[in-house]
Amino acid sequence: MSTNSPGGKNAVVLLSGGIDSTTTLAVAKSLGYSCHALSFDYGQRHRVELDCAKRVAKALGATDHRILPLDLRGIGGSALTSAIDVPKDRPNTERSHGIPITYVPARNTIFLSMALGLAEVVGAFDLFIGVNAVDYSGYPDCRPEFCRAFETLANLATKAGVEGTNPFKIHTPLIELSKVEILKLGISLGVEYGLTLSCYDPNSKGEACGRCDSCLIRKEGFLAAGIPDPTSYQS
Amino acid sequence: MSTNSPGGKNAVVLLSGGIDSTTTLAVAKSLGYSCHALSFDYGQRHRVELDCAKRVAKALGATDHRILPLDLRGIGGSALTSAIDVPKDRPNTERSHGIPITYVPARNTIFLSMALGLAEVVGAFDLFIGVNAVDYSGYPDCRPEFCRAFETLANLATKAGVEGTNPFKIHTPLIELSKVEILKLGISLGVEYGLTLSCYDPNSKGEACGRCDSCLIRKEGFLAAGIPDPTSYQS
Repeated sequence: MSTNSPGGKNAVVLLSGGIDSTTTLAVAKSLGYSCHALSFDYGQRHRVELDCAKRVAKALGATDHRILPLDLRGIGGSALTSAIDVPKDRPNTERSHGIPITYVPARNTIFLSMALGLAEVVGAFDLFIGVNAVDYSGYPDCRPEFCRAFETLANLATKAGVEGTNPFKIHTPLIELSKVEILKLGISLGVEYGLTLSCYDPNSKGEACGRCDSCLIRKEGFLAAGIPDPTSYQS
Repeated sequence: MSTNSPGGKNAVVLLSGGIDSTTTLAVAKSLGYSCHALSFDYGQRHRVELDCAKRVAKALGATDHRILPLDLRGIGGSALTSAIDVPKDRPNTERSHGIPITYVPARNTIFLSMALGLAEVVGAFDLFIGVNAVDYSGYPDCRPEFCRAFETLANLATKAGVEGTNPFKIHTPLIELSKVEILKLGISLGVEYGLTLSCYDPNSKGEACGRCDSCLIRKEGFLAAGIPDPTSYQS
């Protein structure tokens, strides 16, 4: 992660409304970027997260926030976009092996591609994504080597890429952090985590199930960080 | 391009309904692939091309054909998706310099990403795209180095990528061919080019304008190949 101030340069920040993307937006803001937040309505079961993303973008002072429809259901293949049940109450040992059923095929590739298109239009060369290789080690598209490969691609795929100046940078400020470190970083930057939602299977009121992998990681994170958990759970 | 027969393996083929993607589908079929054709409704001005894509997929015996909505208008920045006028009657010398106004930011990156997602779901490791670095030299995402970088990315972004076996291949059978060579290849494979549409600005009847860059390249191709031009032009 670059530490020198970009001095008001534009950035595109992928924002789901969960802990990680919210913290990432806070990091980008703290570095002085003018942040164009980008979310996707991709037929996710947890669509209430889009309301969270809106609140987060506003609270953290994003320059603008787009929610683009994206038909990942037309592709299929994930518990997050189809009628497959989201796994619940899995112990950590089970969560950390293999590729989860909640993996959405090529999701981060697709999200970053759309972010790249937006970056070209708004004149941004800095893309921020809150991927994490610690808690989400099972997701192939959360790994550092994936992000580096996308950066290489971005610098070939675009107008700027033709000039050979390699201006695009994929920023992954959380990639090596534990959930505790992410929460402490966000708190230090003034993030109100009560605005965020991590649950894969929330109810229509936006209350978290408390039992899916994402809820369990979140709960354990607040507990381990010694931070009161601000999440609204289903009773 | 691989020449050994894949023996009924699945492929995902990006299909716009123009000469190049149609020829690419014919090539993939001739190599023995079971072809999953993929088109996008991305707010293009030339939406009638989707009807052509449907006809082409059927005529060439694609296994299935998906048309996915994709909100590239929400990103903006191209004459193909906005109210910017499509340039007409440009001489070849003018067409071949710089990045055209019809360039859609990150389009092929986005299209290939969606194709990659579909490939994971249908169990395909072969992606076909009809990019061409001869007539479309101004498009950064039609270059061989772009396609190679996407192949590297695909092999990191996916379930199969985690295993390190590098199964994904981006096939670009037309990338070094002239329009004449493409047309002759397609004719040899039985393609009926009357089914295809290349125009950036057709009317609602699907008749080509005959004057945009894409029409001019197409016209010159048929002429140079000595093949009767089957295109319906606006009177």
